[in-house]
Amino acid sequence: MKAYYDPQHSLHHPQFFLVRGERRDSTEVPERAAVFHEALKQAGHEILAPRRFGRDPVAAVHSGDCLRFLEEAPAAWAALGETSAEIVANVHPNRYEAGGYPESIVGRAGWHMADTACPIGPNTFEAALAAANVALSAADAVLGGERAAYALCRPPGHHAYADMAGGFCFLNNAAIAAQYLRKRVGPVAILDVDVHHGNGNQGIFWQRGDVLTVSIHADPANFYPFFWGHAGERGGGEGEGANLNLPLPLGAGDEDFLTALEVAAEALRAFQPKALIVALGLDASEQDPLKGLAITTSGFARIGAAIDSLGFPSVLVQEGGYLSPALGPNLAAVLGAFD
Amino acid sequence: MKAYYDPQHSLHHPQFFLVRGERRDSTEVPERAAVFHEALKQAGHEILAPRRFGRDPVAAVHSGDCLRFLEEAPAAWAALGETSAEIVANVHPNRYEAGGYPESIVGRAGWHMADTACPIGPNTFEAALAAANVALSAADAVLGGERAAYALCRPPGHHAYADMAGGFCFLNNAAIAAQYLRKRVGPVAILDVDVHHGNGNQGIFWQRGDVLTVSIHADPANFYPFFWGHAGERGGGEGEGANLNLPLPLGAGDEDFLTALEVAAEALRAFQPKALIVALGLDASEQDPLKGLAITTSGFARIGAAIDSLGFPSVLVQEGGYLSPALGPNLAAVLGAFD
Repeated sequence: MKAYYDPQHSLHHPQFFLVRGERRDSTEVPERAAVFHEALKQAGHEILAPRRFGRDPVAAVHSGDCLRFLEEAPAAWAALGETSAEIVANVHPNRYEAGGYPESIVGRAGWHMADTACPIGPNTFEAALAAANVALSAADAVLGGERAAYALCRPPGHHAYADMAGGFCFLNNAAIAAQYLRKRVGPVAILDVDVHHGNGNQGIFWQRGDVLTVSIHADPANFYPFFWGHAGERGGGEGEGANLNLPLPLGAGDEDFLTALEVAAEALRAFQPKALIVALGLDASEQDPLKGLAITTSGFARIGAAIDSLGFPSVLVQEGGYLSPALGPNLAAVLGAFD
Repeated sequence: MKAYYDPQHSLHHPQFFLVRGERRDSTEVPERAAVFHEALKQAGHEILAPRRFGRDPVAAVHSGDCLRFLEEAPAAWAALGETSAEIVANVHPNRYEAGGYPESIVGRAGWHMADTACPIGPNTFEAALAAANVALSAADAVLGGERAAYALCRPPGHHAYADMAGGFCFLNNAAIAAQYLRKRVGPVAILDVDVHHGNGNQGIFWQRGDVLTVSIHADPANFYPFFWGHAGERGGGEGEGANLNLPLPLGAGDEDFLTALEVAAEALRAFQPKALIVALGLDASEQDPLKGLAITTSGFARIGAAIDSLGFPSVLVQEGGYLSPALGPNLAAVLGAFD
């Protein structure tokens, strides 16, 4: 399979991560990409550099305010004086918007960032743009006739809304690829198999009937992103019915996941997308430090085979999945199913 | 002047305070109350214990979800394991509510807390209820015929919304007193002179025409609470026109403040409230560590005199104001104007 990779991902190396009131080391480390890269090499996939697509395909998904913020925030933050090396939001409008878009960089951070798990460093935007180009390059490969292509995206993207970062994500690579393909081939679908709900995908296409969003994930009742991902969220307006959430109990394993995937497959077959974007988190692994679900490596192979059997041209976009001995093998297992 | 105080405030002693990405010591320390208490004693004010009003006057302002959260969160948080001693929110719905009220305590913290400056300890709710009783007792004194009464509230309240804590505040003491008086005497007004916009007061009474909310504060363009406090925010629905924000440039001094206070006085005279609740922050002081405005001690005396000259029965509710040599003298200066 053609696989796309850009070493610029390493420009982003987040440090701050507040969990349960304590600062912890971020698990979204550059070493993750090295593990994926090595797994691709070992499995004999063709590793290619992305091409540059400019800002347009990114701006087709993300707001101007948001892109300006991501680009200009590091300098404005540093100019405040006595600031941390990374931007961390500490105050949010939350559910009260009376005052509108704030002027201060502290306010803008709280406006554009949902949580403390998306610290922005001096080169985060550059890395995020590189990841978007990686996803777009894989989309282009599929447009060019490839059955499937893989995008080694880092930072990941599926928690990013049109104007809000969150959960290690800044630009929504899967949504950017989806919108790019939507313009070229017709209706598309995103299938998100990350252990966390794909709330960014859902939010971006909430009102859209031309992009089906489906997510299988650990039940948000007691798992990030907490506020979104319940079965009752089905989309709004023209998008009503074009969002499908399939939450699983914490700790669920291969059989539960594959049963949910069959429900997802049914929705996908009914929708008949011209292309499928797979938001490929690998953090549902039984060995993942997050311990949300308990998928085995052979489970990932079956997940890959089930997606492959749908027969849609597929762009596989890397989302979460954190360091463990199973991380590389699980990627190889999913991609191997497409050979 | 009759002054109300409850030593239970010291049950709340917040530690966590994230500013510009760095953890700092909270400035909202129990020692503040000791300074106020000493200033009251020195000036010969009569210091009284509050009576207990039960939950009803609090529940008349705050949502059931919010009160349940404040009460039950510490145990639920501790039960998660590996948690900090205080609850600090790390993930927020922010401007996206599709999923509704969350189940997890981590989600609820993000739902009910706007920022990282309102950590909840095991006894925070008890201290906050005591502060509400202090405010209600001062309101009762005014109902009983006192020209003015002072409530030494800690934790403060004016950043707290009906269902969201923020900025050192949990229960909105001023709003609780306002609603209590509203039910008994007719339309009332809140005049907020804290250096920060009284966003909680504004939010709680946004749609209400029977409670005028006025706030003089440092311009939120570059000052907490960032999202609210602009001149253009005038209230909504039946409350349209019943909210007045008078932001001042950072660093403004006595003359600017008193000029704004004359504008506020005009609105108050036009509204003719049956009682006035003064959200009495003292952090506009030139000596306050926050350095938002630069009011002198004689400026505070003039502010007190200007409010006194309005002639409304007045409940003075302590809000912000942090440790500095001027803190006690500034309280004495305001209260002295009412003698």
